[in-house]
Amino acid sequence: MKILKNDAYIRALLRESVDITPVWMMRQAGRYLPEYKKIRAQAGDFMSLCKNTQLACEVTLQPLRRYPLDAAILFSDILTIPDAMGLGLYFTTGEGPKFHFPIRLKADVDKLPIPDPEQELRYVMDLARTVRKELAGTVPLIGFAGSPWTIATYMVEGGSSKIFSRLKGMLYTEPATLHLLLNKLTQTVILYLNAQIQAGVQSIMIFDTWGGVLSGENYRIFSLNYMHQIIEGLTRENEGCKIPVTLFTKGGGQWLEAIAETGCDAIGLDWTTDIGEARHRVGDKVALQGNMDPAVLYAPAPIIEKEVASILGAFGKGEGHIFNLGHGVHQDTPPEHVRIFVDAVHRLSKNDAASG
Amino acid sequence: MKILKNDAYIRALLRESVDITPVWMMRQAGRYLPEYKKIRAQAGDFMSLCKNTQLACEVTLQPLRRYPLDAAILFSDILTIPDAMGLGLYFTTGEGPKFHFPIRLKADVDKLPIPDPEQELRYVMDLARTVRKELAGTVPLIGFAGSPWTIATYMVEGGSSKIFSRLKGMLYTEPATLHLLLNKLTQTVILYLNAQIQAGVQSIMIFDTWGGVLSGENYRIFSLNYMHQIIEGLTRENEGCKIPVTLFTKGGGQWLEAIAETGCDAIGLDWTTDIGEARHRVGDKVALQGNMDPAVLYAPAPIIEKEVASILGAFGKGEGHIFNLGHGVHQDTPPEHVRIFVDAVHRLSKNDAASG
Repeated sequence: MKILKNDAYIRALLRESVDITPVWMMRQAGRYLPEYKKIRAQAGDFMSLCKNTQLACEVTLQPLRRYPLDAAILFSDILTIPDAMGLGLYFTTGEGPKFHFPIRLKADVDKLPIPDPEQELRYVMDLARTVRKELAGTVPLIGFAGSPWTIATYMVEGGSSKIFSRLKGMLYTEPATLHLLLNKLTQTVILYLNAQIQAGVQSIMIFDTWGGVLSGENYRIFSLNYMHQIIEGLTRENEGCKIPVTLFTKGGGQWLEAIAETGCDAIGLDWTTDIGEARHRVGDKVALQGNMDPAVLYAPAPIIEKEVASILGAFGKGEGHIFNLGHGVHQDTPPEHVRIFVDAVHRLSKNDAASG
Repeated sequence: MKILKNDAYIRALLRESVDITPVWMMRQAGRYLPEYKKIRAQAGDFMSLCKNTQLACEVTLQPLRRYPLDAAILFSDILTIPDAMGLGLYFTTGEGPKFHFPIRLKADVDKLPIPDPEQELRYVMDLARTVRKELAGTVPLIGFAGSPWTIATYMVEGGSSKIFSRLKGMLYTEPATLHLLLNKLTQTVILYLNAQIQAGVQSIMIFDTWGGVLSGENYRIFSLNYMHQIIEGLTRENEGCKIPVTLFTKGGGQWLEAIAETGCDAIGLDWTTDIGEARHRVGDKVALQGNMDPAVLYAPAPIIEKEVASILGAFGKGEGHIFNLGHGVHQDTPPEHVRIFVDAVHRLSKNDAASG
């Protein structure tokens, strides 16, 4: 059943043939766009914007009006879950997200509720339903969540961190408490993502922004293991279509073989890994998403085009490449450079993909 | 010529047999020690402490009075070089190092002087001479510098950074200017490290703290290439002894084979890389330093001992392991846990190493 006019993104995730390499950008709805800043000012703080269905829908669609992107992604945040658990999320200028009630003790974990996605997180489902309607089948809609480990970093540290002293202290001194927390988050993420799928998202991304700060062994025990459980708990089909799942561990380039074993459809790569070597390592087990350094978008057109060509060339011919940046687009990126980037991916991949 | 009572650290770097696995810690002289804080308060700000030979010598020796460490490292900073180049280094509480005159344009790079290590950086050489005298041949003294790329991050960003927008902007839009800067820094680092060797340091470490934020290709072009030049420019022997060189790129686990090709004697590993796999990859080309997560030192004795045993086991029998943390010791580490750590390395490696 073909319900999408442009299904290149879904087809590439499933390693089916495509005419062009599909492209989207992590944080494609965001502060580099002047029209985003306008809506954001109107909404007030960041979470108020996330919770305002009409405005969140508007900013979700903004980048698609400007650029021929091959997917939309819900405008939301990985911290909606701890917010729904009652940790009191707030944002400070310059310091990022903070929690009034961070998790420090086993008793804190015991008290944590499992939020009902259609109650405490209903605004995300409303957004998915609204965006799907607005997209009218033009491109697929991506839903997402943070990995349990990554969400836990914020919940235990009480905000952003460089060295994760509290969480790692818990990992090494009270691993049972950490596992209890990660289990609750895993249950919550499964409910949350399945609700997003029911609400209409057509692909899932799991962002493991901080898995890369772990040792290989601890990455498998405290992060990958729980993402694996999530994948097994997800509804992988809806409306007669497969729902592909992408895992992205920033700094996870050393562990691609293990990530590919989880049953995910695609692995997101940051720019420190050569995409050609990555493909060689994972074979045709999974598709690959990535992986241009977002800083390339500071450069003029010829450099952007050269880098795009270099990544397309490194991936090589054949199926299974979704172009993206290796992390979110930087907020001081010139919007016109994004157009150059998106156009370059489409133009330069056209011949290769067609013959691939 | 045996000029050291305990030369286990040097022998391990040269992959010669040792009775125990030698151990030291990055940032072993520092804020986790109450006696350090006392001297620091006496000295005033951080750079005043670095420039005060007697006090800097005292803090260099403090950890060796407490623990049976197998090496001393000069108490200094990788930013002594840009400070000597006249960038106006200062430290702000909570935000780390800053420069009054960051490097933004080619004209800024053109104006940069190459400091004479026995003039502008004489305080570092005086410190090396003083510490060597005080150590009286007990353990070797390590000298160090930052990698050109890592020093450049601070010089161009004007301080610490998360995403290195300015430097990466320069890399992609004005690579010739960046190469000019990296060339000047390379020349400076060679002069600086050779002067340290003349002043008595017996081993060299190059800290590439930020090489890991580059793509593999750019890592080779903008960081590794210059470290390679430094290694080729160093005096590798003094007082009849070899001067081993260790390269440490944090986040460089994907590029160990390339690092081993530079002619360095050892590679420093952070904790994201399995040391057994690393050894398998580099063969007996180089020794390996590392690589326990510094956060393990938050844990009680049995956990610390288990982690030490696990890393010793992963490295396996045979020569060429220098135990260390995967990055600097955290400032909130309990000092008694460091003793447990150092003792565990010596005790648990004794039998293995003897039979290795």
